[in-house]
Amino acid sequence: MPSEYRLRRRVQFYETDLAGIVHFSWFFRYMEEAEHALWREAGLTIAVAGEEVGFPRLAASCDFHAPLRFEDEFEVWIRVTEITEKTIRYTCLLTSGNAKIATGTLTIACVIHRPPEPMRSIPIPPDIAARFQVASGADA
Amino acid sequence: MPSEYRLRRRVQFYETDLAGIVHFSWFFRYMEEAEHALWREAGLTIAVAGEEVGFPRLAASCDFHAPLRFEDEFEVWIRVTEITEKTIRYTCLLTSGNAKIATGTLTIACVIHRPPEPMRSIPIPPDIAARFQVASGADA
Amino acid sequence: MPSEYRLRRRVQFYETDLAGIVHFSWFFRYMEEAEHALWREAGLTIAVAGEEVGFPRLAASCDFHAPLRFEDEFEVWIRVTEITEKTIRYTCLLTSGNAKIATGTLTIACVIHRPPEPMRSIPIPPDIAARFQVASGADA
Amino acid sequence: MPSEYRLRRRVQFYETDLAGIVHFSWFFRYMEEAEHALWREAGLTIAVAGEEVGFPRLAASCDFHAPLRFEDEFEVWIRVTEITEKTIRYTCLLTSGNAKIATGTLTIACVIHRPPEPMRSIPIPPDIAARFQVASGADA
Repeated sequence: MPSEYRLRRRVQFYETDLAGIVHFSWFFRYMEEAEHALWREAGLTIAVAGEEVGFPRLAASCDFHAPLRFEDEFEVWIRVTEITEKTIRYTCLLTSGNAKIATGTLTIACVIHRPPEPMRSIPIPPDIAARFQVASGADA
Repeated sequence: MPSEYRLRRRVQFYETDLAGIVHFSWFFRYMEEAEHALWREAGLTIAVAGEEVGFPRLAASCDFHAPLRFEDEFEVWIRVTEITEKTIRYTCLLTSGNAKIATGTLTIACVIHRPPEPMRSIPIPPDIAARFQVASGADA
Repeated sequence: MPSEYRLRRRVQFYETDLAGIVHFSWFFRYMEEAEHALWREAGLTIAVAGEEVGFPRLAASCDFHAPLRFEDEFEVWIRVTEITEKTIRYTCLLTSGNAKIATGTLTIACVIHRPPEPMRSIPIPPDIAARFQVASGADA
Repeated sequence: MPSEYRLRRRVQFYETDLAGIVHFSWFFRYMEEAEHALWREAGLTIAVAGEEVGFPRLAASCDFHAPLRFEDEFEVWIRVTEITEKTIRYTCLLTSGNAKIATGTLTIACVIHRPPEPMRSIPIPPDIAARFQVASGADA
């Protein structure tokens, strides 16, 4: 029952912008990469093409404390900080060496999606919910 | 003294993911596109390669209400909702037709950046600050 | 029966990299944007989520002559330069003012895709093929 | 004197598109990732923010043989297939298990870039050129 994951990653060239640092939109992708690695460690895959049940984002936020640069190595520590009937919330901390780079959150909802009908929120399937628990000490 | 801008945009194919909808990271890029269009309307450019003064993001957040799909036309309405000595905060509303798609915020800081020294926060240059004002009725 | 399209576009901040210029991967997206605009002008959409018939790329190439920078305005001129039973080939010229920026090609195939079966090449549906013709004078 | 590198990688969610496969533009980024890993193995970094000498792309091409899907593991085998006074050419093979996914090429030029002057092609610095050699058996 994993409740957290630490992803190690290196900054790629195409993630930088003309300011010489990683473009802020990439931090949201980094958090999602860590989330999906957490799901794999739980024996799950978060998305299957053509599958009706999915997990779109309800909300995302990030505070940026220090920049990342090309080839920097960094870590994304993701923790499950809330599980409700239909949603999961994660809190992330990005660090590079001793430097605190960013903190962020992702909230996802479980939906059923049968186009052209709109997505509709549903309870998280029990066999998925059972694979996660709220990280101990989580307060964010 | 512009305080808001309405950007019209169409969803591109490469912005979608296997769930058939726009990947959430793109909403942050859409908001930034609107921000930069607002700066152009103010007679400014937010970034010059090699320039020491820049405007990195301090914080970004988005709540996702409904998905966007390939070729959807949508609007990003960005408003300046706070200006401090060293920061500007924007609030954004994304809509497609009558549908509310997303709401978000961006907070940027003015910095001076002389690599390899770290970025350092500085007051927004007066000739830039003078070009913006807080949007009337802004409360977000 | 459109055989060409001219897309006008401005460089976005997130398309640049630490070298201060547009990352080369974006040129392929620019060409695809022009392709999809050409299809719309032909009264078509190239992709429908959940649709079994699609048009993946068989080949893509680009020669880079001069860089694009943040906020540069440029044009992508796309022309249909070959149509076979199962493929369409486009040739693109990117210019900014009088500067020749890049030239490229895209070749797409018509496929049927019923996961988990692999994609299978099929003839382009006649009602689609009838909407395009090879651009006059096309020699690339 | 490395002349080749094998990069192992997993497909990320944000690299897929509504067709349920990796968007073709990503293959060019995958090739570049392998290139930069090759440079690191040679004790080099291909780009330093603010540095005047850089290595922009002159040309890029890719033939797509089979699609990649979310979470697929794949390998990018990059080889140096030509070195001239001012350019390096790489040939890449992407595979996933036994499946041939794509083949591609990148050609880069050494330039000096002192904005606002245009980039100017220069000979590859000898200490960089000495780190690479053409891969044996390279014929592409």
